Amino acid sequence: MKINTLKGTYDYLPSQVALRDYLQTVILRTYQNHGFERIMTPIIEDIENLDKSDGGENLNLIFKILKRGAKLDNALESGSKKELADMGLRYDLTLPLTRYFANNRSKLGYPMKCIQIDRVYRAEQPQKGRLREFFQCDIDIIGSSSINSEIELIDTTAQALMAIGIKNFIIKLNDRRLLKNILSEVGFTEDQLDSVCISIDKFDKIGPEGVKSELAAKNFDSACIDRMIDIFGNLPMSFDKARSLCSDTTAADSLASIMEAIEQISQGSYQVEFDVSLVRGQGYYTGTIFEIQSPDFKGSIGGGGRYDNLVGKFLGEDIPAVGFSIGFERIYSILSEAGYSIPGKKRIALLFEPSEVVDASKKAASLRSDYDVVLYEKPKKLGKFLNKLEEQGLAGFYVLNSSEDVKLFGPKDE
Amino acid sequence: MKINTLKGTYDYLPSQVALRDYLQTVILRTYQNHGFERIMTPIIEDIENLDKSDGGENLNLIFKILKRGAKLDNALESGSKKELADMGLRYDLTLPLTRYFANNRSKLGYPMKCIQIDRVYRAEQPQKGRLREFFQCDIDIIGSSSINSEIELIDTTAQALMAIGIKNFIIKLNDRRLLKNILSEVGFTEDQLDSVCISIDKFDKIGPEGVKSELAAKNFDSACIDRMIDIFGNLPMSFDKARSLCSDTTAADSLASIMEAIEQISQGSYQVEFDVSLVRGQGYYTGTIFEIQSPDFKGSIGGGGRYDNLVGKFLGEDIPAVGFSIGFERIYSILSEAGYSIPGKKRIALLFEPSEVVDASKKAASLRSDYDVVLYEKPKKLGKFLNKLEEQGLAGFYVLNSSEDVKLFGPKDE
Repeated sequence: MKINTLKGTYDYLPSQVALRDYLQTVILRTYQNHGFERIMTPIIEDIENLDKSDGGENLNLIFKILKRGAKLDNALESGSKKELADMGLRYDLTLPLTRYFANNRSKLGYPMKCIQIDRVYRAEQPQKGRLREFFQCDIDIIGSSSINSEIELIDTTAQALMAIGIKNFIIKLNDRRLLKNILSEVGFTEDQLDSVCISIDKFDKIGPEGVKSELAAKNFDSACIDRMIDIFGNLPMSFDKARSLCSDTTAADSLASIMEAIEQISQGSYQVEFDVSLVRGQGYYTGTIFEIQSPDFKGSIGGGGRYDNLVGKFLGEDIPAVGFSIGFERIYSILSEAGYSIPGKKRIALLFEPSEVVDASKKAASLRSDYDVVLYEKPKKLGKFLNKLEEQGLAGFYVLNSSEDVKLFGPKDE
Repeated sequence: MKINTLKGTYDYLPSQVALRDYLQTVILRTYQNHGFERIMTPIIEDIENLDKSDGGENLNLIFKILKRGAKLDNALESGSKKELADMGLRYDLTLPLTRYFANNRSKLGYPMKCIQIDRVYRAEQPQKGRLREFFQCDIDIIGSSSINSEIELIDTTAQALMAIGIKNFIIKLNDRRLLKNILSEVGFTEDQLDSVCISIDKFDKIGPEGVKSELAAKNFDSACIDRMIDIFGNLPMSFDKARSLCSDTTAADSLASIMEAIEQISQGSYQVEFDVSLVRGQGYYTGTIFEIQSPDFKGSIGGGGRYDNLVGKFLGEDIPAVGFSIGFERIYSILSEAGYSIPGKKRIALLFEPSEVVDASKKAASLRSDYDVVLYEKPKKLGKFLNKLEEQGLAGFYVLNSSEDVKLFGPKDE
């Protein structure tokens, strides 16, 4: 037998689970307090739904579930690899959400404001930070095209981050329509815009020269490329500058309203900032896009945006939608390394002679209003055992028929 | 695209998730208060570990994950169906637990007292109550052969049930060793005992005649069968009677001590009861076995037992272990149908004109210490909308710049 987990998946130790549960509970309660409701969908989905979804490169990372019995025999006979699987593990929570909405629409509030905190699976090449099993943590509003939904998602997400103790962050904002409008004005054609956006997303990684040669390699017009580099090569760009480059200011007006409202609602407790170079990878975004950055952490700790064309697919009609996701695994890993301290009842041990189990249970019951109490039969080497308990993070102990009070371990010398 | 979930799996509506989360949280907190700690393992495991495990019939119900790329090509070339998958979805939490203990032993307390509340998967033929994706809810003590571990598990599980409002239940107890000892005395040979136990498990379903003909079909000695039917055909059997039938009273003594301690610890708040006919399906149990029954619910709502030979498999040494599982999905489905009411903050709507988002957000923030507040833009037909909110289970509403106070919906006429 193999004692390790599969690569890219992890066993979590008790202290790690305690932190993960605490963070998820606080985030969940903040979302609920802001009127969102948790929904839950299966981890396994029909393989056709997954394959036809808007997952981009994630579609190559789906874990597929083998057919069984006669179905498998038929599939093997057909000689087609595609036929071997009829289900798969979900690679995100967005595809299940859109299916869920279509399946349960009549029983849901409208607009639907929902929470999903759950596992997803991707057959990534495992490397630092690339997990094959991980949690996503999303809120979405389905059925509203009002910018008040963007405002609500931004404020709720910011409140959730602050509730778990993350105060130092900036929410960057952009609008896909604004970005594309500028690129059109520069001279790119409609069909080139998505491709140019993907390159712009790389400015901070490969620099203006890198972006330039990437676009040149695609045989795009070199004058256009030069004008684009001229504009995007000198970031940051002020919001007013960006607005002045647009022929259609709809997106800019909407961004301005969002930023103004957030400034008044947040009253300085968190910041939003326009960033014309913000692209976000997913192809399905249609309007506003968000990303959370923090000087304390490298990279993004959350993001989202409006995706008005996705949910309607199942229903054959247009359903506006917007979502915001917290990067749970990143935040967990950062807070875990920082030695995050979880509030709550202290955990102590109650030690007893094997024959004293009744008295031990009664004493433990009386201590449980103040502590989480774990029972241990008294070992031969009590001192050594107590040292171990302290190492494992217990807060103290009580020895039945010997201690007067609970004895808390002292603070550790550094 | 298909809008339904896969058969045997479910989308949970917000009110259903709220109940599931509430029950899991209360059970988890009770377990933690009793000193157990939650651990977490991946849903996907190496297929060899799963295939070699002690899962009995569940081994035929494993969802297997298809290999990818060159590995899949090689597997197809080999012509062996077994080669097609290298991972699978876990079918219970016991196999992952034993692997986890072997993998992390040096970092864990000993004895380890752990909680697992998580999903498992079985390719069942879907029918009422048979889910393909469901939660199990277990506590286990690994590394203690003391009967005080049995006592602790029984008391902790009973406290968890009472904490979610289930008061009317009996915990039935037996010991595999006692049962087998009696059957040996009756005349069955060592290698027949497991098979006889399986038939005894069916007394309440097929009656003495059914059990008799089942054993006769196995060509077991008919005088033995008659003596067994004579003893087990007239249940219940008193504990003293059972003890008198044993040549070795070790198991009976241990059961007597457990029952006596529980009577003193529970002080009548819950009941334990000896049941000589209790078998429990799993082949891996080696000693004490438990099952929770309630006159309010048909069938069992939990069970467990001692399994001293399982955990050591990974480590090549004997590690004693005992576990107790609450039947989460059964309890959820019963309480859900009974219209269980969840304590906690009431959920109200705050209605506002689209242009008032800042004031609405500020007012909502002030109401959130008392309520969970969901924001809605005021619709044209306010009365109709309010009726819908009430239908959906909201507790009340507040209309910005119009309501003086939060207006709670009245209790419904029956």
